[in-house]
Amino acid sequence: MLARTYSPSPEAVARAAAAYQADASPENLQQLQDAVEPPRQELFRRLNMAQGGTAALVAMRGLLLKKLKANPAWRTIDADLMHLLRSWFNRGFLRLERVDWHTSAMVLEKLIRYEAVHAIEGWPDLRRRLEADRRCFAFFHPQLPDEPIIFIEVALTRGMSAQVQPLLDMRAPVAGTSGADCAVFYSITNCQEGLRGISFGNLLIKQVAEDLKREFPSLRRFATLSPIPGFRAWLSKKEFGGEEKEILSRIEDPAWHLGEVPEALKALLLRLCANYLLRAKQGDEPLDPVARFHLGNGASLDRINWLADSSEHGMSRSAGLMVNYVYWLAELEHNHEQYFKNHSIAASPGVERLAREWR
Amino acid sequence: MLARTYSPSPEAVARAAAAYQADASPENLQQLQDAVEPPRQELFRRLNMAQGGTAALVAMRGLLLKKLKANPAWRTIDADLMHLLRSWFNRGFLRLERVDWHTSAMVLEKLIRYEAVHAIEGWPDLRRRLEADRRCFAFFHPQLPDEPIIFIEVALTRGMSAQVQPLLDMRAPVAGTSGADCAVFYSITNCQEGLRGISFGNLLIKQVAEDLKREFPSLRRFATLSPIPGFRAWLSKKEFGGEEKEILSRIEDPAWHLGEVPEALKALLLRLCANYLLRAKQGDEPLDPVARFHLGNGASLDRINWLADSSEHGMSRSAGLMVNYVYWLAELEHNHEQYFKNHSIAASPGVERLAREWR
Amino acid sequence: MLARTYSPSPEAVARAAAAYQADASPENLQQLQDAVEPPRQELFRRLNMAQGGTAALVAMRGLLLKKLKANPAWRTIDADLMHLLRSWFNRGFLRLERVDWHTSAMVLEKLIRYEAVHAIEGWPDLRRRLEADRRCFAFFHPQLPDEPIIFIEVALTRGMSAQVQPLLDMRAPVAGTSGADCAVFYSITNCQEGLRGISFGNLLIKQVAEDLKREFPSLRRFATLSPIPGFRAWLSKKEFGGEEKEILSRIEDPAWHLGEVPEALKALLLRLCANYLLRAKQGDEPLDPVARFHLGNGASLDRINWLADSSEHGMSRSAGLMVNYVYWLAELEHNHEQYFKNHSIAASPGVERLAREWR
Amino acid sequence: MLARTYSPSPEAVARAAAAYQADASPENLQQLQDAVEPPRQELFRRLNMAQGGTAALVAMRGLLLKKLKANPAWRTIDADLMHLLRSWFNRGFLRLERVDWHTSAMVLEKLIRYEAVHAIEGWPDLRRRLEADRRCFAFFHPQLPDEPIIFIEVALTRGMSAQVQPLLDMRAPVAGTSGADCAVFYSITNCQEGLRGISFGNLLIKQVAEDLKREFPSLRRFATLSPIPGFRAWLSKKEFGGEEKEILSRIEDPAWHLGEVPEALKALLLRLCANYLLRAKQGDEPLDPVARFHLGNGASLDRINWLADSSEHGMSRSAGLMVNYVYWLAELEHNHEQYFKNHSIAASPGVERLAREWR
Repeated sequence: MLARTYSPSPEAVARAAAAYQADASPENLQQLQDAVEPPRQELFRRLNMAQGGTAALVAMRGLLLKKLKANPAWRTIDADLMHLLRSWFNRGFLRLERVDWHTSAMVLEKLIRYEAVHAIEGWPDLRRRLEADRRCFAFFHPQLPDEPIIFIEVALTRGMSAQVQPLLDMRAPVAGTSGADCAVFYSITNCQEGLRGISFGNLLIKQVAEDLKREFPSLRRFATLSPIPGFRAWLSKKEFGGEEKEILSRIEDPAWHLGEVPEALKALLLRLCANYLLRAKQGDEPLDPVARFHLGNGASLDRINWLADSSEHGMSRSAGLMVNYVYWLAELEHNHEQYFKNHSIAASPGVERLAREWR
Repeated sequence: MLARTYSPSPEAVARAAAAYQADASPENLQQLQDAVEPPRQELFRRLNMAQGGTAALVAMRGLLLKKLKANPAWRTIDADLMHLLRSWFNRGFLRLERVDWHTSAMVLEKLIRYEAVHAIEGWPDLRRRLEADRRCFAFFHPQLPDEPIIFIEVALTRGMSAQVQPLLDMRAPVAGTSGADCAVFYSITNCQEGLRGISFGNLLIKQVAEDLKREFPSLRRFATLSPIPGFRAWLSKKEFGGEEKEILSRIEDPAWHLGEVPEALKALLLRLCANYLLRAKQGDEPLDPVARFHLGNGASLDRINWLADSSEHGMSRSAGLMVNYVYWLAELEHNHEQYFKNHSIAASPGVERLAREWR
Repeated sequence: MLARTYSPSPEAVARAAAAYQADASPENLQQLQDAVEPPRQELFRRLNMAQGGTAALVAMRGLLLKKLKANPAWRTIDADLMHLLRSWFNRGFLRLERVDWHTSAMVLEKLIRYEAVHAIEGWPDLRRRLEADRRCFAFFHPQLPDEPIIFIEVALTRGMSAQVQPLLDMRAPVAGTSGADCAVFYSITNCQEGLRGISFGNLLIKQVAEDLKREFPSLRRFATLSPIPGFRAWLSKKEFGGEEKEILSRIEDPAWHLGEVPEALKALLLRLCANYLLRAKQGDEPLDPVARFHLGNGASLDRINWLADSSEHGMSRSAGLMVNYVYWLAELEHNHEQYFKNHSIAASPGVERLAREWR
Repeated sequence: MLARTYSPSPEAVARAAAAYQADASPENLQQLQDAVEPPRQELFRRLNMAQGGTAALVAMRGLLLKKLKANPAWRTIDADLMHLLRSWFNRGFLRLERVDWHTSAMVLEKLIRYEAVHAIEGWPDLRRRLEADRRCFAFFHPQLPDEPIIFIEVALTRGMSAQVQPLLDMRAPVAGTSGADCAVFYSITNCQEGLRGISFGNLLIKQVAEDLKREFPSLRRFATLSPIPGFRAWLSKKEFGGEEKEILSRIEDPAWHLGEVPEALKALLLRLCANYLLRAKQGDEPLDPVARFHLGNGASLDRINWLADSSEHGMSRSAGLMVNYVYWLAELEHNHEQYFKNHSIAASPGVERLAREWR
């Protein structure tokens, strides 16, 4: 019914369009604008006025997205919900809050449930991630008081982390923050399926970096330790010949990294990964979705880390490799523009060199 | 520049409109929707993301409205700001708060400044209006924490007030609330010029009535004591003959009400006022703007009060008359629908009779 | 050093005492008061002024109590700390707060750690105890913001609970509260070892009962489901002859309650328990410490429940029996006075009868 | 009744005193302590447990102090109230809060009412004192949420203020704080008559100085601009001869300062004032109460200011002179100890020289 009855009337649209073609006056434009706005939007606006309305609409879009493939006609409903939610979840209305052990259990249990990058194994694991050498921040919306919209987990470290398992070890001793010179963003999770496609991560990372810089002036570097979700899928589609093929065949064994790893394999994988990140494209942008996100934000591709995520998941999707993207606050704007104007990628000389060492 | 450069391109709109006329597909509709949305809206959305952005946009529209007459081309900018502000100041995002002597001076001084119906003469006057036998409520928006959007002043009384001066007397003794059976809404003020045309009053009155009912179950009646701003202007445009003309001529003397008033004058004014409120129209709705507001909300016109506002202002615009509109919670919905479907006005038998007694 | 150097000077005390004996003037009294106040108290008062001072003094008394037996000279230090803490933890300064899933993890984890009556087995167990059919309240002190002083757990039930295991079952379905007519206090825990001997429970129970009565007017009864910690110890010291001895010998088997239990054993245990509670004394008060607490508060001994706590702990200290003490708000004052004036115990006719049925 | 019935029993005290003289055991000491504590204290402790109890007891002492002269027997009641209130209003329980235009009208109107040094002439005057170039801080107690205990007014200035009228001018333009190098404490008021004799000012000034230093690292100096309440009273009791007598006779004319003032008069008054402050004593401490307060806190007497308070009040009590006492944070402790051990006063060389220039 939403898709049929609450859509704009084609006749009215046609009439207003024709009038506007005949005379492009402001009045005719206004009437055309009115004619093309689906009555659904007004319905959704009124629902949003009720107690709990915002939460209900977010949930409704969550459901809709799940069944969109089976119901392509719903795409037009989705467009309207998206339009409105984007307006209502405008950055201006979001509140950045630190999440720590003073936060309510209501919110904390949602972190456990939502965490999408490195699963949180219950309360003791969560607690370790909120200790004095860590920070966690989330955006909240006034209408969804107990619901994080997006959250990010940060480790305050000495030197830029090259491996994720030590960060996830819930028995790791709590470090002092006085010597910390690096903030490592090791996990970022969008919580609301119903807000898919509305981007908060960019704003969250930048504000968190600025806030941390104020709290810890000794921080020199804000870096992620990020997965490379598409690397092995890309690898498996590539044709390799002769020696390379043989070297790479070893990683078919799920335990390949447990014993000694031939230097040639390590060198080849690092070079291939640099190529994947810098040259594999989807349109004009990198093929890798995480690379697209951070590079589009203006971060720079700083380092590829060997055996950085030795979990089963990490091995199977990126052969254990991970990337540090660095957010140099002074260069974000410039990088961001270069990325969208010229599709150029900011990368460290080391990664550039690695990429050149293959083909 | 906003009106010219940031308007939709007539060519693009024409092209999309033509495509849609040729084939009314969802894709073509979407493209037409995109084409007719002025780029201004995206600019305003981005401004709204900055610290203080919402307040700046509200102020910008305030300025724009002031100069709209001189700049008719700005009307199109206004339409976009209105569209966005209506979405961002959705009832769902407003917070109803009681305002009393615990409220910050920052907010209280704004009540003094904004009050538009019965001016507040400084802090002692304000204080009296916040005593135990009064209530004041306001809507606030999360982005404008120290700015009331709209506020309403209520007196808890025994019996429905027929005169406003006793309510405004700052030396009046504070009454107990235990015997109160009526809540009199004696002042309601929209505070933000930049939100003109976005209606909050209806929702405010209804929620306040419900909240008061919960706090004071003994309240039987929720009524306004309202001005009749257009009465004398309407009267002065009417032609009267013979006796009526002579009777009415007395009110040309600004002091006409101070001595004894002839019964005939009183009777005539009350009947004329009932006619003004029930029969004088602007289109299908009452000519009087306050009547339009309350009757459209579903209230009923209960009583016209003689010498109810003897201030200079009250005498000059409504010959001292005021109206009680009553909000019967159980009938609001029904009245509201009748009003908008059949243009019928809910009025008490007494007011109906008065109206019939003339012509 | 605290015990020696910071004690009152015997000479000064003797001098002031002699002066007072010679002339009982207000000035001499004042000087005697000053002379007998140990300088420790002033030291503690000054420590209390520092950031974190209150918490440090509470912790200090906790340590001191642990080692008091080994250091009897410290008793005098304890008396001073007790005197000051009693003043600083005056009911007037405590804040009653509801504890639920909105409470900070910081506080919730302390409930898990402190719970002394029915251990909380981790976060899921805690969560069940904070669901909609339960209430938990705690006293907090402004100087110890994240530290509960005492907390109580309540189940809202239909009928007065006779068994504790169903209340502790973390998989029990959450009940509606609309039909609830009884609030069962099933656990009360003093959290601060350093405040031992300063009584908060009485005030907590009464205020919680009053608050619940306001929130749920349908509640008719406020009752505990309490352990009888001294019953089996008392039983084991008693001499029984002939048949009774034989009947009672069965409970030596730790599994005695698992199969069918002879009616004679049940009847005998219930009668003995009634006798224990009503007649076994320590001075003028009941020997059982839980009975002393609730009866002293003015509650009445309403019912002894068979196989009410079948946990190992419950079987070994009270043969599985538990008591409902009922807090009839209107009778508390009267019962409390009778208890302290005449050492009389308020008990239901049923319990009185049981007691009479033995010897 | 409080003075008679609730006093310690002289017999019991005598008995306990005798027992203690015979055997100075801890038990006998404890019994003596119990015997000398007036039952009043327990009564007051219980009153303090009731809702509003603390406020009632503070008010009770306020009344008592007013009538103490007429009822010397109440002195003993006062001693008990003082003892308890000192414990309950321990610094540890007080909350320092900034007072500004965000503060509730409830609290702000109390500042207007209580201000004891430089009267606040209504809301606009108060508002000026809370602008961006000013600070106001108060201590609050959890049991008296809307009642400031003591408050202090501070101006952020460039250079140390030598005159008070510019600070009190409510039309003075608001200065920027970026160039401020001095915080001038120009008014400090104890609000609760019932807490007279319990000192908060010392702690308030020091904490405010530390907090301001953190907020404005550019502040170099924390100074008061203080009255010299006893100067002219002291002057009038002194015998002067010949020339001095003649010079001083001029100040009998209330308008003496309005025209040109002879250099000799100025020089003489400054020297006499330095002598008054440094050499006039009450016991071992300065005769001037304000000097006693700040010097006892560890401040140093930095400068005597000519025509610093030209109000009628300022002229009549101190011939228009005022003092800057400077709080050098690093020297407070040392000065404080010297003051109480050796009765030595920290003063600047300039003030020392002035004092030496007379007699």
